[in-house]
Order: sequence, then structure tokens, then C-alpha cells
Amino acid sequence: MREGITPAEALGIVLAETPVLPAERVGAREALGRVLAEPVVAGRRIPPADNSAMDGYALRAADVADARVEAPIELRVAFEVAAGATPLSRVGPGEAARILTGAPVPPGADSVVRQEDVERDGESLWVRVAPPLGENVRTAGEDVEPGDRVLEAGALLGPAHLGFLASLGRSVVAVRQRPRVAVLSGGDELVEPDGDVSTGAIVSSNSYSIAAQCREFGAEPVYLGIARDTPQDVEAHLRAGLRADVLVSSAGVSVGDRDYVRGALEKLGCRLLFWGVQMKPGYPLAFGRLGETGEGGPLVFGLPGNPVSAMMTFDQFVGPALRKLAGSTALFRPLVNARLAEDLEKKPGRLNFVRVRLERQGDEFVAHITGNQSSGVLRSMILAQGILLFPAEASRLEAGTQVRVQVVDSSVFAADTPGF
Amino acid sequence: MREGITPAEALGIVLAETPVLPAERVGAREALGRVLAEPVVAGRRIPPADNSAMDGYALRAADVADARVEAPIELRVAFEVAAGATPLSRVGPGEAARILTGAPVPPGADSVVRQEDVERDGESLWVRVAPPLGENVRTAGEDVEPGDRVLEAGALLGPAHLGFLASLGRSVVAVRQRPRVAVLSGGDELVEPDGDVSTGAIVSSNSYSIAAQCREFGAEPVYLGIARDTPQDVEAHLRAGLRADVLVSSAGVSVGDRDYVRGALEKLGCRLLFWGVQMKPGYPLAFGRLGETGEGGPLVFGLPGNPVSAMMTFDQFVGPALRKLAGSTALFRPLVNARLAEDLEKKPGRLNFVRVRLERQGDEFVAHITGNQSSGVLRSMILAQGILLFPAEASRLEAGTQVRVQVVDSSVFAADTPGF
Repeated sequence: MREGITPAEALGIVLAETPVLPAERVGAREALGRVLAEPVVAGRRIPPADNSAMDGYALRAADVADARVEAPIELRVAFEVAAGATPLSRVGPGEAARILTGAPVPPGADSVVRQEDVERDGESLWVRVAPPLGENVRTAGEDVEPGDRVLEAGALLGPAHLGFLASLGRSVVAVRQRPRVAVLSGGDELVEPDGDVSTGAIVSSNSYSIAAQCREFGAEPVYLGIARDTPQDVEAHLRAGLRADVLVSSAGVSVGDRDYVRGALEKLGCRLLFWGVQMKPGYPLAFGRLGETGEGGPLVFGLPGNPVSAMMTFDQFVGPALRKLAGSTALFRPLVNARLAEDLEKKPGRLNFVRVRLERQGDEFVAHITGNQSSGVLRSMILAQGILLFPAEASRLEAGTQVRVQVVDSSVFAADTPGF
Repeated sequence: MREGITPAEALGIVLAETPVLPAERVGAREALGRVLAEPVVAGRRIPPADNSAMDGYALRAADVADARVEAPIELRVAFEVAAGATPLSRVGPGEAARILTGAPVPPGADSVVRQEDVERDGESLWVRVAPPLGENVRTAGEDVEPGDRVLEAGALLGPAHLGFLASLGRSVVAVRQRPRVAVLSGGDELVEPDGDVSTGAIVSSNSYSIAAQCREFGAEPVYLGIARDTPQDVEAHLRAGLRADVLVSSAGVSVGDRDYVRGALEKLGCRLLFWGVQMKPGYPLAFGRLGETGEGGPLVFGLPGNPVSAMMTFDQFVGPALRKLAGSTALFRPLVNARLAEDLEKKPGRLNFVRVRLERQGDEFVAHITGNQSSGVLRSMILAQGILLFPAEASRLEAGTQVRVQVVDSSVFAADTPGF
């Protein structure tokens, strides 16, 4: 096991150990936001039949080849084709059929003239322009032919994909499974939010922020509750999470004297891959895997107990792993350059993740520190729209410096107007 | 009713008619992504009691005021305080208590020295530094006092908020109701995706893309199915949607000769506010409201039948209305400048919404047209990462021009690295 590694080394180890989950088949309507696990091959033609792109008249182009505004040609309106109807009649020479947009072009006809280009009087139709052959006819299979590979594996399914799948008649689609994350916390001092805090107990708030982070990263949290400070209870809680894809434990406020989690994990066969990352907040982060590489045991993250440290380490390491599990290739948050609004200082050695508010000034972002950066104070995370990366080796960043910021709150990109 | 108005006029009318929905109370764990409807006032203290910020020893600062490394002062370790325990014993003069991070500071003690600054031998503790009074003690209520207004109405609840609410012991929270959207389509030519298309019928794919768009904008779709082309069936379907906050109908491929929707809406008391917007795709968009302004009848959108037109008009008008209903103030997508990769031409008169793929080149975006822009072809929407605004009065945009693009796929902002 490695100890005290850099955040980049830690992330490398985590992602190397993270598989992509296998496929499952879900109802196409329920597939929003999922990643396609197989290409989609069309089973039908779109459009299904030659159909009209306009409201107008279906006819034989040869009949009206000499039509001009000054010398319109007369045809007889023989019948009408509604959209969705199967035209049984045939358009004969000298005939036309009234047709609506989307309706199938009847046999015999080869072109459609727009209703703006004709004059009608009862059964008489005066055509004033000569349409090129095939004018205003959408040919069967113009968009999709059976056998066409229309969507590729890896596509993130959005509303347009779902509409398209519907138009292909697909009711079921193969997507990557959603990661399931077992969440537990541990510590005799912890109680659930409805517990008694009058005796100095602390609410296990981490479970709630972590479960919400799982959802934000597209995963399904399974909350296992609070393990008490005995080896037996810790082991029992961990065992309850072994069927998940990821096991996330957050300690109580201290791990010092009573860290049974590590012992229990080792007993269950967890290979611990690292402990301790050169970052602040969040040094005491542990990562391992149950079972051999490739064997599919859950990834195990032991997060620090401080609320901000727990959220930050989740954000930096668990989140990208969840996205990889789900088949996504966009693992990381947006990165922007911003101008620092005030001086920042720290001891050199660890990469600091500084919570900032992002103010838009023209095309530029200005980063403001969100007050108290103590790792016990969730308020800095509530206000955080971005996470400023204060490099490990640096000890001072002056106001006005350009800094790199991970964007947490994507509404900072939202515009005040639609642009029109 | 106004006709043929600009997109900006249409949006103005829609938003002026759109209320913010009333509040509901939901479980705090289920409140992710919701907008707070009332300020949150703390009902308890955080931290609940004076507690230790370090693993170390609680003592009386006055006892060790003269301690130095060369001349440590001896105290007696009288007892130990675990995190979460209520300390019943008192630290007397000349005494210290072993204490873990987060554990309540016992009566009598006023400061904590870190374990790195002492040497212990059985009950004897040698203190090598003199702590300032209050050193390493987090005071009760330091972060939050009862009565503090800790979150403001309008806050979008993220994972940190949920953790914070848990730590306050809040199990229920007042948020804006989620908009419910009744979705229907109409046309004799339409079938559900599992219907028979061999006779020229067309799949009602719009309902599926629209329901997914509702979800993406945070709303709850209620799909009412396909209304047949009779006034009775259209009216029956519309009535089924009257309890929703928004009613979205999309016609079949044509509305021309058989638009019963408008008649049925008027019969139900809908005030139609506009019909026809100077945009492409999407001209035949209708908007109205059932009931008087302020009375709370549903907003009614009659979308065009073409798949791309339906999605585009939803995106531009229904989406921002849904966000406003839900209490959000970030109504619009991000807007970026991009360099146009190829020439674009159109007739002047209507604002064109051109589907583009966005390529990142350094700090710049390059916009590539996503092939066939026909309003019948969903593939252009599937590939669209952005919507280029081709102004109404313009007729030509040359390759290399700077254009304005609404960002649809926010993963275009995602970085290839975490930035460290």
C-alpha cells in the first residue's frame, strides 16, 4: 500500500482500478441520461413510405411539364390522401390527389406541387408551375434504412435520442448499468438527524451529503447506516455493502484511536492501495478493492470524517470513478481560468482545494473565497460554485493572479438572456 | 391574439404569464435539486457543545502557562473523553483529560493541547508548550446559533445543503413544487412505438422526446396519449390535462386542414395569446392560458408537429417557463461565442436555430453544422451540442465569423483532466 501520495497519483490508481459496468436492458422511455452499451441498428425505414413534404397536390410531373403562371395546366382532383392513410387509389394521367404533409404519396403520382402554386375550383385544379420530378416527395428510407447503424455505443441518451428510438419502434435498449454505492458511516458519537444531540452526539450528516453526491454523479446510493465502534459492528455493516459496486465509508470526526474499518476491510479481503493523499482538505483518504483486479469486487473508499473533507474527496475521486463505471467518458468537471479576488496563503506541500464563489465580469470569472475554509464548516461548500486549485508547491497567491478553478455549479455558465 | 411575432416577443409573453409554483414540504433527503421556498432558520447549535478540534489533552491553560520544551510541566491524566460521550467528570487543577477530535471539552478544562506537544507516561503527562486560553476548542454555536437564518429562499439544494440540513436535524423542508406537464399528441396518422407502421402510420415520437425534455428541465411529464382527429377526442384528451401546470400538445405532421385543437382549447376557455413565431424551425407555435391571469390555470403550448420543430420550440419557450415555475432564476442555457466552420445561408426574415456540434480548439469553440437541418430529421438534434442563432435579418454567415451559440450539451465544458 502506498502512503502520502499526490492527488494525481491517487486519481490514477483509482481510475486504473475502476471497470466499466456491464450492460442491462431498460425500457427506452426510461433511458434518459444513460450511456448506450451497444450500437442501435435500425429495424425499419424512416420515412416508412414516400410521403409529401408539403400540403398540396400529388400528380405526375410529365402531365404539367409545360405549366407556367401565364399558361396553367388543368388536372382533375380525383381523391384526397390524409396523413396516416394508406392510399388505395391510383393517380391516373391528367389527375391529381389532394395531399397533406406527411401523407403517403399515392401510386401513379411522382411529385407534389404546393397549394400556393395551384388554383382550385371544385374538381378542377390549375397548376401554374412545372415541378421537377420528385419535387416535395420525401422518399421512403431517405433518413434511415433497415440495417443502418444509427447510434453508436457510448452515446449519452438525451431527449432527441429517445424520440429517435421511439420512431424506430425500439422499446428496449442496452445501456450501461448504473453504479450502486453502499454508504456507511462509523462512530459512537454519531446519530441520525432525528437523534438526540443534547448529550454531545453529532449528526451523521456525511451520509446525507454523500448520498446526494452519488445521485448527482448518476449513481444509486444504498445507505447502510452508522456502524458503532466495535470490530463486529463495522464488519457487519461492511458485509451489507459487498454487493454494491462501490463502498464508501466515512468515519466519525476522528479515526485516531478506534479505526476498526481498516482491520475489518483487511479481514474481508480488501487490498488497500493507498492511504493518505497530499491534499487539503482531505488527507486521510483510503482506497482499495475487494477481490482481485478484474474480478469485480467493489471499489472501497474510506473518506475522512470532516464534512468538507468527505465531500471534497468524494468529488475528486469517487465522482470520476462513478462516471467511468457508468460508461461515461466525460469524467471531470469544467475547468476555467479565473482572477483571484483576494490574497491566499498556505504552507507549501499539499494541493489545496479552496472553495470559491465565481463572479462573472464580462468574459472573465473572478474567484472569491467563501469565508471560513475550516473542514468542519459545510457553509463553505454550500456557497462554493467552484474549487480553486492552490498548487502543492505554492505558498502564496496574490489578488489578481490567474487561477484554475473546477466549476461545481454549472449555472455559473447560464446566460441572463436566451441570446435573441 | 398576436400572430407572427418575434421569438423575443414570444418569450416575453410566455414568461410574463408564467407564475412561480407554491411550496410543498418534502423529506430533506429527497430535496436534491429543488428550490427552497422559505428561509431555513436553525433550531439548534452547531457545534452543539464546546469540543476539541484535535486529538490531545483537555486542561486548564493557567496550569501550564509556563510550560516550555526545555521545562515541561507535569499534569495527571484523570480520565478520558470519547467523541460523542457526555463528560461527567471535571478536570481539576493539575489535571488533564485525554480527548479525541470532536469530543466535548469536559467541565473545568478550557484548552486542548495537541498530542504532538506532550509526552505521556502512564498517568503522567508532560506538557511542553503553553496553549493560549481556548486553544483547539471549537466553541458551542461557533458555526450556527439557534435562530440563525442559515439558508435563504431561492437556494438550489445541492449535496452540501442536504448534509447541512441533516446536521440541523431538519427532516422536512419547504421547496417549490415541481411542475407537472401534461403531454399529448394528435393526429389520425400517429401510432405508439409498438404500433403497426406497415400502412404508412407514423410513430408519435414527439411525446417521447418531449417527456424527456420535461425531465431534463426538472418537471414531471404525464403522457396523455394520442388524440384522434375528432373534436370530441381532442377535447377529452385536453380535459385530462387540465389539472397539470402546463399542457403541451404536439400535432401530427400537419395541422393544416384538421386543427381541432384550437377549437377545443377555446371551448375550454383558453385565452390564446399568440400563434406563429418568426423562427425556423418552429413557426407554428401557439401559446395560451386556461383561466384568467393569476388564476392558476395551466399554461398551454401547441407545438409544431415536426420532430425538430417540436423539440426546438420546447427548448426555447417551454423549458424556461418550467424553470420559472420551479422557482429557479437561471432560466437560460449557457451562451458562448464560437467560430463558424462553414458558410451558412438563408432567406432573411426569421431567426434560424441551427444545430451545431461544438469543437474545442484551445480557449475557442468552433461550430460545425450537424448535416441535414430538415425539421423532420431528429439526427440533427441528436448530434447537436449547441444551437447557433442565425439572426432574423441576416442572409449569410461566412466561415470564420463569430457566432452566438446556446450550449445544449454541457459536457462540451468538461475538462480532459481534473486540473491537477
